[in-house]
Amino acid sequence: MSILTQKDFACRIEQARKVAIKNKLDAIIVFSTECEPAQVRYFSDYWPSFETAAVLIPVKGEPALIIGPESLTYASMRTKIPNIIQIMDFRESSQPDYPGSKLPKWTDVVKRYRLRKVGLSGFYLVPYVMMVNLAKAMGGLKNVIPADDIVRPLYMQKSAAEVRCLKAAAKASEAGFKAILAAIRPGMTESELCGIATKAMTAAGAETTGYPIWCCSGPNSCQAISRPTMRKVKRGEIIHFSIGAKVEGYSASIGRPVVLGKCPESTRKFLQVGLDAANMTFDEMRAGRKAGDVAKKIHQFVIDKGYGDTLLYGPCHGTGQMECEYPFLETSSQYMLEGGMTFMQDMFMHRGTKDGFRWEDGLLVKAHGPAEMLSSYGRKINILDR
Amino acid sequence: MSILTQKDFACRIEQARKVAIKNKLDAIIVFSTECEPAQVRYFSDYWPSFETAAVLIPVKGEPALIIGPESLTYASMRTKIPNIIQIMDFRESSQPDYPGSKLPKWTDVVKRYRLRKVGLSGFYLVPYVMMVNLAKAMGGLKNVIPADDIVRPLYMQKSAAEVRCLKAAAKASEAGFKAILAAIRPGMTESELCGIATKAMTAAGAETTGYPIWCCSGPNSCQAISRPTMRKVKRGEIIHFSIGAKVEGYSASIGRPVVLGKCPESTRKFLQVGLDAANMTFDEMRAGRKAGDVAKKIHQFVIDKGYGDTLLYGPCHGTGQMECEYPFLETSSQYMLEGGMTFMQDMFMHRGTKDGFRWEDGLLVKAHGPAEMLSSYGRKINILDR
Repeated sequence: MSILTQKDFACRIEQARKVAIKNKLDAIIVFSTECEPAQVRYFSDYWPSFETAAVLIPVKGEPALIIGPESLTYASMRTKIPNIIQIMDFRESSQPDYPGSKLPKWTDVVKRYRLRKVGLSGFYLVPYVMMVNLAKAMGGLKNVIPADDIVRPLYMQKSAAEVRCLKAAAKASEAGFKAILAAIRPGMTESELCGIATKAMTAAGAETTGYPIWCCSGPNSCQAISRPTMRKVKRGEIIHFSIGAKVEGYSASIGRPVVLGKCPESTRKFLQVGLDAANMTFDEMRAGRKAGDVAKKIHQFVIDKGYGDTLLYGPCHGTGQMECEYPFLETSSQYMLEGGMTFMQDMFMHRGTKDGFRWEDGLLVKAHGPAEMLSSYGRKINILDR
Repeated sequence: MSILTQKDFACRIEQARKVAIKNKLDAIIVFSTECEPAQVRYFSDYWPSFETAAVLIPVKGEPALIIGPESLTYASMRTKIPNIIQIMDFRESSQPDYPGSKLPKWTDVVKRYRLRKVGLSGFYLVPYVMMVNLAKAMGGLKNVIPADDIVRPLYMQKSAAEVRCLKAAAKASEAGFKAILAAIRPGMTESELCGIATKAMTAAGAETTGYPIWCCSGPNSCQAISRPTMRKVKRGEIIHFSIGAKVEGYSASIGRPVVLGKCPESTRKFLQVGLDAANMTFDEMRAGRKAGDVAKKIHQFVIDKGYGDTLLYGPCHGTGQMECEYPFLETSSQYMLEGGMTFMQDMFMHRGTKDGFRWEDGLLVKAHGPAEMLSSYGRKINILDR
């Protein structure tokens, strides 16, 4: 049984329609890709692969899912929006011809819906060529307004159903990390360990991974963003995992350092400062606080402990359908925390190019009191006698 | 030990430089994303995640890897191009501020390399906002030339090392399908089966999957592009797998239908026509033939067998770093097949929205004789007594 219902999606469309009306737009269009599928999935439950996709939410008339030439049967069976339009601009990057295909163009869509001014969300993802075609159809770029800022407030505070999805994704992610702790031995490759986690997460109800997960070990562990390699993990080094599952489009992540065999005392201390800062973050993330103040406090704690030079960013970023979504939480963040917002507590620290680690778990800002932790398994310094 | 060496990458850069000179350009710029990483990886071995990336190959001066604000340690440890430039335009879509960051802009890069005219490959992927900034720095869009057509010939015929990578990826993919055949039972979810394949592929030397792999079963099997769901596989239905591994950036895929329990005779016949057409394709893909003629012949075979309405496209598409890369092989294809070109023999057929399947394996066009099959495990109608 799905957590999200047809009604949830209808409600989202209705909210976007209201946003369009309020901003004097004829429609909201959201755009997504294979690796940035969030907005299209949010409104339609459809999740592009190979091709790109959009959702058109007009003030008047039925919403439409817009896809490329090859995705019709796939999209038809996934979308909560029955009305589907295919446009060649959404084809895959290998640019097939599709001989004989007579798909409508942006001009047809603009005419059919009588669009004079549209708001475009996912603005920073839209390919140049598509924007040119859309703008031309709209009678100029001035009629295509960047709309991320006006669409985001719809999903910055999560509904109860969304929180259930995020918790289910967190639970599946824990199963992934549990499988790693059970299986890890010196000599296994980083990629192999990620495969073990993927199998366990999908067996525990994940659709797939929530993002391209990684294990990075030894010198690789200093990478805040990474991908797993053929490197074999060794005793005595930091092996750090960023493991996350996707459930009904919602992505989780748990970040954990692991050490096999003996852990040098300096490493243990380094990991502990990160864990203390991470734990502190859950207590600081309270409704009514200015986001930047939380970042400053956590950074100051790490600086006071003598590890200021190991900080890269953080200590949080928004999360939801994308494991990392707007807003980041940085020392410059001016917005106020509100109940229902969800973040990744993401504490990444590195000793130059020597090594590094991440402590990461989802958190839900509550109306009162400290934030709720969305996952907690193995949230300790895991030193394993292997 | 890696198959590709520093020398391979240096050679690729040199070839691109020659293409730039020949086309009177000051540089080639290739652009890639997390889900379309091919061109940047081809020239640099770097593989973006979360952020985007580019490679700048100037006629004069050192090539540069261009990345976003967060990827420096990751990129430094992966790139074969030591010179790295960070530009804010390459940040992730959640648009962090990075307080205090003073990254160079496109204008700085254009000035430093004295660029007056550049060729841009990955042209159809470049976000609108980035193109505007680049074009402005270049003194107008007229100085940014779409360059996919001139860069592609560099990688349309694969080197011996590239073929080794593709074969290694095919072998790991076979391990994935083997694990599925061993484990599959009625009641397992499509996602779970993909997780089993992922674990086996990474244990067999894959970096990760070559693309978002899928299993689609029963009515879902009519989807040519898909993603796995929570649907539980059943006896007597078509369960089709598109499973592929990535090795050193090169992607493989094997497509197979599987039936558990009894297979209805009409289904067996349907699967067999597809397999016959797929087998025929390997024999038809010969150097010196016009690509469109092969497509016409295979399509005609399927039509003659009475299954013309089940055809969607094909019967091949280019393959290499992207599981699906230029060129498609369609009835409209005018190019000639040449030795060293690699394709996926990709035979997808579907009975409306009832069901469908894919037979897929990599192939290498030889200078003489039929194409070489890059994988073959389980290339038969797999009816399993479970």
